[in-house]
Amino acid sequence: MDSVFSDRISDVPKSFIREILKTTINKDVISFAGGLPNRELFPIAEIKDAASKVLDSFGGEVLQYSTTEGYLPLRQWIVERYRTRAGVKVDVDDILITTGSQQGLDLIGKTLLNESDHAGIEEPGYLGAIQAFSLYRPVFEPVRLDFSGLDTEALARALKRAPLKIIYTVPNFQNPSGISHTDENRDEVARLLGPTRTFLVEDNPYGELRFSGRETRSYHTRMPENTILLGSFSKIFVPSFRIGWIAAPRALTEKLVIAKQASDLHTNYFAQRVLYQYLEDNDIDAHIEKIRERYRRQRDAMIGAIGRHFPEEVRCSNPDGGMFLWAILPEGVSALEVFDSAIRRNVAFVPGDPFYVGKTGVNTMRLNFSCVDEATIEVGIERLGGILKECCASAG
Amino acid sequence: MDSVFSDRISDVPKSFIREILKTTINKDVISFAGGLPNRELFPIAEIKDAASKVLDSFGGEVLQYSTTEGYLPLRQWIVERYRTRAGVKVDVDDILITTGSQQGLDLIGKTLLNESDHAGIEEPGYLGAIQAFSLYRPVFEPVRLDFSGLDTEALARALKRAPLKIIYTVPNFQNPSGISHTDENRDEVARLLGPTRTFLVEDNPYGELRFSGRETRSYHTRMPENTILLGSFSKIFVPSFRIGWIAAPRALTEKLVIAKQASDLHTNYFAQRVLYQYLEDNDIDAHIEKIRERYRRQRDAMIGAIGRHFPEEVRCSNPDGGMFLWAILPEGVSALEVFDSAIRRNVAFVPGDPFYVGKTGVNTMRLNFSCVDEATIEVGIERLGGILKECCASAG
Repeated sequence: MDSVFSDRISDVPKSFIREILKTTINKDVISFAGGLPNRELFPIAEIKDAASKVLDSFGGEVLQYSTTEGYLPLRQWIVERYRTRAGVKVDVDDILITTGSQQGLDLIGKTLLNESDHAGIEEPGYLGAIQAFSLYRPVFEPVRLDFSGLDTEALARALKRAPLKIIYTVPNFQNPSGISHTDENRDEVARLLGPTRTFLVEDNPYGELRFSGRETRSYHTRMPENTILLGSFSKIFVPSFRIGWIAAPRALTEKLVIAKQASDLHTNYFAQRVLYQYLEDNDIDAHIEKIRERYRRQRDAMIGAIGRHFPEEVRCSNPDGGMFLWAILPEGVSALEVFDSAIRRNVAFVPGDPFYVGKTGVNTMRLNFSCVDEATIEVGIERLGGILKECCASAG
Repeated sequence: MDSVFSDRISDVPKSFIREILKTTINKDVISFAGGLPNRELFPIAEIKDAASKVLDSFGGEVLQYSTTEGYLPLRQWIVERYRTRAGVKVDVDDILITTGSQQGLDLIGKTLLNESDHAGIEEPGYLGAIQAFSLYRPVFEPVRLDFSGLDTEALARALKRAPLKIIYTVPNFQNPSGISHTDENRDEVARLLGPTRTFLVEDNPYGELRFSGRETRSYHTRMPENTILLGSFSKIFVPSFRIGWIAAPRALTEKLVIAKQASDLHTNYFAQRVLYQYLEDNDIDAHIEKIRERYRRQRDAMIGAIGRHFPEEVRCSNPDGGMFLWAILPEGVSALEVFDSAIRRNVAFVPGDPFYVGKTGVNTMRLNFSCVDEATIEVGIERLGGILKECCASAG
């Protein structure tokens, strides 16, 4: 039966993470493998009130088909938030509500990528982006990420090899690494891309979750015509609603709307209205502060535990926000092998492999701190530290 | 800027209907142009109760990320409904919840269509399917629809020209025509397709809305390995939730899940839970009966008014269900020109053009009866009849 399928679908890497998560269902496993926001912080009562209110006040209207672009007041709210929080100037007509920012990736692929176009992607990079773009069969150009952001020499080399249609980045508290691009790094990246027709895709699901360090400026403030912004309510509100957005240069937005209409007509309109009602009736900044506070404590617990229990040869990122931390093992130590030992001792993480295009047996690992409390972090990191010491010793 | 876009996005026809609907916003216009279910029938209070109940009972779980396949009990409900209502046997692992059945079309394109593959489509056919498939750049093979279903001679000719990867149909109360395939027509289509590797896509958003005539059997009962079923809750529950599904042969479902994950991770999970709670706590069959009753009365009003006011040369379908009725004008009369006259006299419909692949100035029109009450139907059809008489006379 295989031959009936499209060529493109066979290019999509399987979600290795899904397979890993299956091994962590056992309740005795302390899991740093997840990628979920902490559900204890979801505003359940407020959502219930907002849902009741939109149904009482607007009735059938919120249950009917709606426009592809999305609910206008919600789009205006996004414009205003960009202006006041990030100094980013976008017009409401540049905002398209999407079914999660994952859909934004698919729409970018649909509207921009011809087969064999070159697409830059951070290495390590977000697996969901690799999957989404794979369907449009580009040539991936991995650009190494270091602790201060994109390796600009590698980027310059990639640009020399072939024009990049897009380059995909998560510049704030990246998934998987927790790394942020410094302002200096962004300046240099913008200097390289400004004169080109490359779109930099700034995917920013975690940007509001900064709990230390200095604010940085969006790529959009440096090169608005070359920047596509992706945003999401999944990490500051709830994920199950699947509400995100794209902000793009106008001519591109018009194409994105056509692609969106063909893809799912519009994003769940009831959910858009409930979200907007929530934003009207509640102080989302106070809510975000609660998330930051919790994640900060858990990051501190993890960094502290790593200092006490990991062998010195393992280097880690120290993220200023978000949900993830990155560990780099000595050369030659495979995180996949560490994972096998770890799962036998009831502690889990995600080995780095799925975050690379076409590499396996890498020496990196992702640790999630958003969903594990401080006491459990201590126990889990101590357990993992013991395993790492053995693995590093036997490799050394 | 145009050259930066992908080739595929320029192939997507614009939604002409969107443009038409803009002209009908004027409150004096009697519009048969819409394609919406009647919002007066939405179960608002029941949805409010269901939303409160899932939040009270399950809390954060219904707000978290979830599985790509969709909520298992909802998928089981769909399996059970197929079994008891349609005699269709599918397994729960064959069901994938989609973000409306529009997403089902996109996923079929993603997993099956290589560029230049041949894709059959009813003519006239559903515009949203033409748009969705266009992104994957197939060669469309229009197959004429007549009052009893697909023109099987045209289908046989198309199959001789080249293998069809898919053929897309809405066999019950089609949009735009209201036409249903008879059982005899389905037998003959299945006889032609059974020995091939063509997938027949049976899109069935209106199937539950039968208000007269005899039940027919799904293509799936005739050729399960060649049939992909698309379903939707938009017409029997509410559209804004964007919940539909695909039921497909297992090997294809596995690919559809990969494509779905890359497209939007999963469909709004809160909405899936609210819908399922609604189904648990209410009698959806009683609700569907109310919709059928209302649409039947409005269809009867429209058929009656057409008999009184349309010129004899205009032939119309007499649908046994759904929301639309199709009118065929004498050869040489352009429905676009009728539309221009109609809108000046405050009555609207959708000219047939957007339902054809690459034809304009056709002599057909779509009339919607789900959203207009009986008295208004009488006034609107009388108005339209006057215009048609003039247009037919001047063409004759």
